[in-house]
Amino acid sequence: MKLSPEWVVGFVDGEGCFHVSVEPHPEMTAGYQVLPEFTVVQHERDIQVLYALKRFFRCGVVRRNHGDRFAYRVRKLECLERICEFFMEHPLKTKKNVDFRKFRRIILLMKEGKHLTREGLLEIIDIATGMNTGKRESLERIKRELLSGQRDGPPLSETAGER
Amino acid sequence: MKLSPEWVVGFVDGEGCFHVSVEPHPEMTAGYQVLPEFTVVQHERDIQVLYALKRFFRCGVVRRNHGDRFAYRVRKLECLERICEFFMEHPLKTKKNVDFRKFRRIILLMKEGKHLTREGLLEIIDIATGMNTGKRESLERIKRELLSGQRDGPPLSETAGER
Repeated sequence: MKLSPEWVVGFVDGEGCFHVSVEPHPEMTAGYQVLPEFTVVQHERDIQVLYALKRFFRCGVVRRNHGDRFAYRVRKLECLERICEFFMEHPLKTKKNVDFRKFRRIILLMKEGKHLTREGLLEIIDIATGMNTGKRESLERIKRELLSGQRDGPPLSETAGER
Repeated sequence: MKLSPEWVVGFVDGEGCFHVSVEPHPEMTAGYQVLPEFTVVQHERDIQVLYALKRFFRCGVVRRNHGDRFAYRVRKLECLERICEFFMEHPLKTKKNVDFRKFRRIILLMKEGKHLTREGLLEIIDIATGMNTGKRESLERIKRELLSGQRDGPPLSETAGER
């Protein structure tokens, strides 16, 4: 199965997800790691479409998601950069494009290593908080924690982006 | 917003639905009417994509579906014929194409007026029963009723197709 760029844009407008999670990581300078990912989930009957996307973008993996659903998933920063370049050249037509633009800003900040600093992390959290179905409240909790310099208590793990 | 054919195929591969319901209708010769429809449902934030699809296919309506979701919906037979022609020229890439082919067979049978006869209706029910998430059991109940010539009891109303 060979995919055209326009088909990929239409399919991702429908089924794609740009997602950023922020998770506690004691070994990171700022105490948290930023985990951006691009996913497309399908029922297993359409697993061949997920492999076609993997070939199309020349990166990512296909893994079982849950039950009879599989995901095409991209997590590597250099691969996400390539994905971002593609969707800059071939813009999404739905409001998912708004989330994509925010996702891309986070990828660019990470490329510059900003996620390794407290200030950069705060900026990333602000962007992620503004993403469509972001768990605003919890990201703001992490933000307050970072601003207060406090990192005690139970680990925080929160996500932002369309699921 | 202007849509390309390939984008439309990708988007419908993700979000489109080919659906056939069979409902009781005492004035129809066979006692039931066949109601095929093509729908694309989106959150209201993407209603402009639904209107773009309406312009693209030059038919159909955009209506509130439920809550904050809207649907682009095509029910007129002549419009559904046009939709079928498009997806024959520009094939879907997911397994939704299997359902589409069955949907198209039903549209062609209806164009020939077959749905107005008991035999044609039985053929249509057999095809609809084989569609992906068809309510097999209930369609088979209508079939048994048609075969036995019995049309008493509570009204039957069943659907087949991806929701």
